Amino acid sequence: MDTAGEVACVDFWANGFGMRARIALRELGVAFRYVEEDLRVRERSELVRRMNPVHRSVPILVHGGRPVCGSLNILEYIDDTWGNNKARCLLPKDPVHRAHARFWADFIDQKVFSTQTRFLKSKGEEKAVAKCELLEQLKRLDEVLGDKAFFAGDEFGFLDAALVPFSSMFRGYEQHGGFSLDTECPSLMRWVRRCKERESVKSVLPDEDDMYELHKKWYGIE
Amino acid sequence: MDTAGEVACVDFWANGFGMRARIALRELGVAFRYVEEDLRVRERSELVRRMNPVHRSVPILVHGGRPVCGSLNILEYIDDTWGNNKARCLLPKDPVHRAHARFWADFIDQKVFSTQTRFLKSKGEEKAVAKCELLEQLKRLDEVLGDKAFFAGDEFGFLDAALVPFSSMFRGYEQHGGFSLDTECPSLMRWVRRCKERESVKSVLPDEDDMYELHKKWYGIE
Repeated sequence: MDTAGEVACVDFWANGFGMRARIALRELGVAFRYVEEDLRVRERSELVRRMNPVHRSVPILVHGGRPVCGSLNILEYIDDTWGNNKARCLLPKDPVHRAHARFWADFIDQKVFSTQTRFLKSKGEEKAVAKCELLEQLKRLDEVLGDKAFFAGDEFGFLDAALVPFSSMFRGYEQHGGFSLDTECPSLMRWVRRCKERESVKSVLPDEDDMYELHKKWYGIE
Repeated sequence: MDTAGEVACVDFWANGFGMRARIALRELGVAFRYVEEDLRVRERSELVRRMNPVHRSVPILVHGGRPVCGSLNILEYIDDTWGNNKARCLLPKDPVHRAHARFWADFIDQKVFSTQTRFLKSKGEEKAVAKCELLEQLKRLDEVLGDKAFFAGDEFGFLDAALVPFSSMFRGYEQHGGFSLDTECPSLMRWVRRCKERESVKSVLPDEDDMYELHKKWYGIE
């Protein structure tokens, strides 16, 4: 784990936050070793406890033996290390566009993710409220995307990498909520298909049915 | 509010998140207009609703009529716009050190702030637990700082700007919890005094007693 310059990504196959890092590394052509941490097991591995003693969570990017933790922080690190000043990077150059990408990535983490959890965990009235909120948040992202190919324009970038992992739960959302995302968020769904044509995304995103099955077990969904 | 190039910071005097932006602007010598948003009033102003329709929160940095929201996002924007490639910037140059600063800034937002809220809001056993957690988190930051002058070394930077506003509640913590931070976190307290010698910090940080009085009202502390 401390070979000079070696890049490793410690993650769990179904972890949307970790998929971000793995997609970004592939987008920038960074070779890395994947180390699976099974989050279905209660205890964290010695590696995770040592590399991320504060949160004991994944993903962890280990570069030359040094850990970087937190998925958006990892995206920034990947861009700072392999993307900046080169032909291909994740964040746009213009500070206003960079701020825009970071704002919506934070929106996904602070709003969409917690709403998803409430939607999947709850029943009855609480589930109905969470479903409305989730759709409202996805529609906001649909509007932010508009008719652009990717969130920052023509190039797949930071916000695309931050959001696209969550699309592996979209079929689960539809089944759980009884709605069609093609009807509710048509631009976003076209964007999902566009992203899935990319090798980086295709090779990282897990099977949607496997994702929903796992979440059903996690949240006790019948 | 849309004068070309004008910089305005919409904030509330006692908002720790907003103080970050105001300190960072002063550190980098950016002239700005301060617009007070009174958070003690229930309704947000038309300006805030228009500039930050998603969260309706402050701080908002308005630059040439365009808003940037989210306090750490604003620090990144300030660095991207006025700090980058110049003599003085907020984030260090080395990607590993940048990741370190972002990691601990996120720790403050995700851990310290919510623990502070629980500590001030709760009573009895819950308060005792929150007090232990808060001290543990501050001690972690004390360790991260170690014997350095500032978090990234000799220069006041990103993580200093992210944390120092919360020091305006430290006297409040001590009174509310019956402990001495000089005993618990000596390095951190020396750092606070060092920060307060700076014009940028001195001119932004509110009176500590005013801060505690406000929080007492907010959280119904007797």
